[in-house]
Amino acid sequence: MTSTDSIGAAAGQVPPGLRGVAVTSTRIGDVRGDEGFYHYSRYSAVDLARTRTFDDVWFLFVHGRLPDAGEAAEFAAATAERRALPDAVAAQLPAIADACGPDLLAGLRTALSLLGPQHGMRPLWDDPAAGTRDAATVCAATPTVLAALHRLRHGLDPVGPRTDLSSAANWLWMLDGAEPAPAHVRALDAYLVATVDHGFNASTFTARVVASTGADVASCVVAALGAFAGPLHGGAPDRALESLDAIDRDAGGSPERWVADRLAAGMRIMGFGHAVYRGPDPRSALLREVAAELGGPLPARAADVERRVAATLAELRPDHPLFANVEFHAGVVMEGCGIPRSMFTPTFAVSRVVGWCAHVLEQAAQRRLIRPSAVYDGPPPPEPVPARGR
Amino acid sequence: MTSTDSIGAAAGQVPPGLRGVAVTSTRIGDVRGDEGFYHYSRYSAVDLARTRTFDDVWFLFVHGRLPDAGEAAEFAAATAERRALPDAVAAQLPAIADACGPDLLAGLRTALSLLGPQHGMRPLWDDPAAGTRDAATVCAATPTVLAALHRLRHGLDPVGPRTDLSSAANWLWMLDGAEPAPAHVRALDAYLVATVDHGFNASTFTARVVASTGADVASCVVAALGAFAGPLHGGAPDRALESLDAIDRDAGGSPERWVADRLAAGMRIMGFGHAVYRGPDPRSALLREVAAELGGPLPARAADVERRVAATLAELRPDHPLFANVEFHAGVVMEGCGIPRSMFTPTFAVSRVVGWCAHVLEQAAQRRLIRPSAVYDGPPPPEPVPARGR
Repeated sequence: MTSTDSIGAAAGQVPPGLRGVAVTSTRIGDVRGDEGFYHYSRYSAVDLARTRTFDDVWFLFVHGRLPDAGEAAEFAAATAERRALPDAVAAQLPAIADACGPDLLAGLRTALSLLGPQHGMRPLWDDPAAGTRDAATVCAATPTVLAALHRLRHGLDPVGPRTDLSSAANWLWMLDGAEPAPAHVRALDAYLVATVDHGFNASTFTARVVASTGADVASCVVAALGAFAGPLHGGAPDRALESLDAIDRDAGGSPERWVADRLAAGMRIMGFGHAVYRGPDPRSALLREVAAELGGPLPARAADVERRVAATLAELRPDHPLFANVEFHAGVVMEGCGIPRSMFTPTFAVSRVVGWCAHVLEQAAQRRLIRPSAVYDGPPPPEPVPARGR
Repeated sequence: MTSTDSIGAAAGQVPPGLRGVAVTSTRIGDVRGDEGFYHYSRYSAVDLARTRTFDDVWFLFVHGRLPDAGEAAEFAAATAERRALPDAVAAQLPAIADACGPDLLAGLRTALSLLGPQHGMRPLWDDPAAGTRDAATVCAATPTVLAALHRLRHGLDPVGPRTDLSSAANWLWMLDGAEPAPAHVRALDAYLVATVDHGFNASTFTARVVASTGADVASCVVAALGAFAGPLHGGAPDRALESLDAIDRDAGGSPERWVADRLAAGMRIMGFGHAVYRGPDPRSALLREVAAELGGPLPARAADVERRVAATLAELRPDHPLFANVEFHAGVVMEGCGIPRSMFTPTFAVSRVVGWCAHVLEQAAQRRLIRPSAVYDGPPPPEPVPARGR
């Protein structure tokens, strides 16, 4: 038992890690883990992913309602204009790519940390009207930075953003400079819509804590990226997809043997299980369908592995069923869209930054500092300070 | 009433902003606002500031006890070696200084965001043993970055760190390249010791939330800097000292008239009042003494203004007494040490980063995600997603 456990129990105040404690109210969305359902504003997120583009849903996160066709075109044009980076940031990307190496999220964090002052972003407390504009800039610049860092790291010149493409299409374009296939754009749109927001995860909470101090939008997103990269945060589609490789490499192609070996070794089954959803993750069913529409051998193989892993788990651990999680199917979709594995988590950041910004603006509007306290449980003060000869 | 108020009240769970809610236990220190007392581990922070150097107290934050003379010398040597920056970071400082302009905290955030990957900092969850080393690197590099950015911004070459100086002396050295006066070093040591930590402020909490995801030390400190710069965070000694200028500029040198004018205009009295201490702030009395030891006209004038402002406030608002806060006297001390006003808040960051890192390592060792929840209070889902012609 950690000291946090005992404090939580002794004080009877809050559960460890604030689990289940409502810190604030929100109109952005919610996750109903028991029902296997999550929504953005009044709409099922899965329904949105099936029927709307990422740009439409981005509009929803900004305005609280879906756009009509005219509003959508206007919004697309306005955000597309924000994709280009200030010269002072663009000029630093090669050095940032060198310094951060494979850690593209640290590179993004660094670039956004420069972008804030370059765009003259002001604390939301001092200049609330700037929030919507600054958020649009951060969200639109994020894919530009990530794609450029990816290409620079591989010795390629960045491919600049285009203003005639949707966000999803432009992301694929900037990664490899090829005209994106409509089927890939549709699949990517569905993935991006499905991952904009998902309750009060640690990165979203971090963004809101910083926003509660009145800080500028870039500061909040930079902070969120630190939490986002933490191993406990979740959301690593590249690692989940490695399960497929591992089954071939370590278990002669047998999912049953691979699961049995890992359970015997006390290891986790990457790509399976979720903290909130005890039953199937609603994002998994969606992305399984999206992957199947893309066609090709990988989705079929992934579906087969999923079925056999789940069956083996149900047999070996009947009391603790595990279902394929969002990362497993997200990896299949992204691989099917031709996105390199090293860009799976950065692609996740491209959508999630829109969610963070909505939370940042909502929190800043509340104008209330989030500032809990701690219980001191060290040696009792005051003890006289011992003298030390200098 | 904000929606947060109603949620807090309706759910009966936690007060808005988590005020007074104990999130965790800590052995680092505590603030007893009602008693006008705060401590680091078992020692009164004010007693430490009167008798020990910043480096001794840094040791206390790392090891949980004060060093003997031999340990202090060893610690000083080990931390001094970490002051130099990796070439890839040092080479970027001119560009960072250009891009961030007067916002040195954004510049520090950017440089530390590069420093983490450059030093190969790994998530604390994956590599707990790296934490102490990485924290020492971040704390030792912070003054080097800030002093270099300050000088670059003024068209001067950075003055490199020296390994033969204490942290306080080295900070003064790097700011202007002159041999620091012993009286200034003593005064600065007292200021730095007094400001390493002060309860669960928003930046410290931010650092702990990110640490709870298992992220690396640099990610945690980068996040904390975002909160630190927020207008609601507090800690702006430069703004507090502006009260002295304003009394001359706006009120013909009369503190009484200045206070009356500001109260009549519904404005705050910068440099007076504190959220936690209702009586005198223990840091104020300490720093008033430290300033007086420095001598010169400013401390005497500041003490006179403080007395007259407090008396006027007591007369005009007898039910709501305000005392000079830490920022007021901190500004006087730093000005007395020859630190430029633009470097007051950066000097605060030099000490506070040591506190953040202690909290980061303590939180990471608990290996528990801080992840509260929110109450959804928007329009009820699920509403069918309207079709849109494309």
